[in-house]
Amino acid sequence: MANFSNNTRFNSHISRTFNRELEDLRNAVLVMGGEIEVQYQDALEALLQHDIKLAEKVILNDVKINAMEVEIDSECLRILAIRNPTASDLRLVMTVSKMVIELERMGDEIEKIAQFVNSTEFVYSDELKLGITHMAQDVQTILRDTFNAFARQDLKTTMNIFALERLVDEKYNELRLQLEQEIQQNVQHIHYWLDVNTLIRSFERIADRCINLCEYLVYLAGGKDLRHNSGKKIQKKIQALIKS
Amino acid sequence: MANFSNNTRFNSHISRTFNRELEDLRNAVLVMGGEIEVQYQDALEALLQHDIKLAEKVILNDVKINAMEVEIDSECLRILAIRNPTASDLRLVMTVSKMVIELERMGDEIEKIAQFVNSTEFVYSDELKLGITHMAQDVQTILRDTFNAFARQDLKTTMNIFALERLVDEKYNELRLQLEQEIQQNVQHIHYWLDVNTLIRSFERIADRCINLCEYLVYLAGGKDLRHNSGKKIQKKIQALIKS
Repeated sequence: MANFSNNTRFNSHISRTFNRELEDLRNAVLVMGGEIEVQYQDALEALLQHDIKLAEKVILNDVKINAMEVEIDSECLRILAIRNPTASDLRLVMTVSKMVIELERMGDEIEKIAQFVNSTEFVYSDELKLGITHMAQDVQTILRDTFNAFARQDLKTTMNIFALERLVDEKYNELRLQLEQEIQQNVQHIHYWLDVNTLIRSFERIADRCINLCEYLVYLAGGKDLRHNSGKKIQKKIQALIKS
Repeated sequence: MANFSNNTRFNSHISRTFNRELEDLRNAVLVMGGEIEVQYQDALEALLQHDIKLAEKVILNDVKINAMEVEIDSECLRILAIRNPTASDLRLVMTVSKMVIELERMGDEIEKIAQFVNSTEFVYSDELKLGITHMAQDVQTILRDTFNAFARQDLKTTMNIFALERLVDEKYNELRLQLEQEIQQNVQHIHYWLDVNTLIRSFERIADRCINLCEYLVYLAGGKDLRHNSGKKIQKKIQALIKS
């Protein structure tokens, strides 16, 4: 009997430690997400104010994001090796291990935005600047909402994110048309225009990666794999999950 | 004694089944890689011959690649849940789960190349076509060598791939300069030129993703994490691994 009680206490200790480890893992992703948000905010400000010092800071800070990816991924491997998680715990660890890849590559896109600021004196038209600003603000909302949805395990928010990302795609297409017009009026700066093209693509890609993260969140919440589904199917599946 | 012998037989059966599962997992990645190679070859031929039917075939076939990703990833999860692998077996399963994400996104880039063929009648200069062809052939070599390196667990080959990818980067930069010249001579087709810009970027990105795969291969072989290292450091680490 004493043995049994000892075992129970021992198991409950293991289980508490394990739960804390999973909680720490979740928190580590949120800390990394917070770092990405700061980097994005700084890169955007550097772009709009043409602040080269701030852009340099963003570029230097990217190593922090990279280190976070490696650290969180190692922790996932350690938990898998020692705790043999199953069911939803296993899904969480595997998903975190993939999420940090997305986060790290988001960091790379943000670094590219900062590099654009750093490498050019080029001033594009006020109209184009306004278009880029609006798109960038939408992407910032998507970024913030994605990390909030992960923190609160809130599927409803992901539905808004899917919708907002479609808007960002539309804005991207409009911006590209506008860019084409400006290039035709001022083709001697073509080298810079192609960099502007890459710049607006970076914003669009950050939103894309948030969608990848949201798909992981839905998978975590309901075990449904949303990859390679159409927008409508995704919406239906999320609605079903919220109701269930 | 009988019990002990039964247990041993049972354990050795489990172990054989598990080894076969890991072997099947490796093979599944190679089959997916083979499918990617065929898709790439078809997309390239469609581009060079302006073969719209072949381009359509590539676009339709991408669902196969997507399905392979989901299937292999599920198998990884199943193995983790049931077999509780440790050490190098665990590393293999986790790495495969990440490799298939790279492979699936390579498939997306290939699909983009096919979509370019499909959406435009635009004919660029012979010089630009030649430049794209050379770059595309180098990327094809990188692709083939990457899957060979994985099949043979051959680290020496990855060193050549790292070197060849730097050449692809140089070719990409040359192509962009040439593209800029052609745009200046013929700016009314700017819409198509920006698509050509995206096209050459797709080739460069496929090579990038091969580098990500090679980093995973080195990690598998020696447990070293090469991510976020400079080219020189990577070379040194691979050399040390080959000697050890």
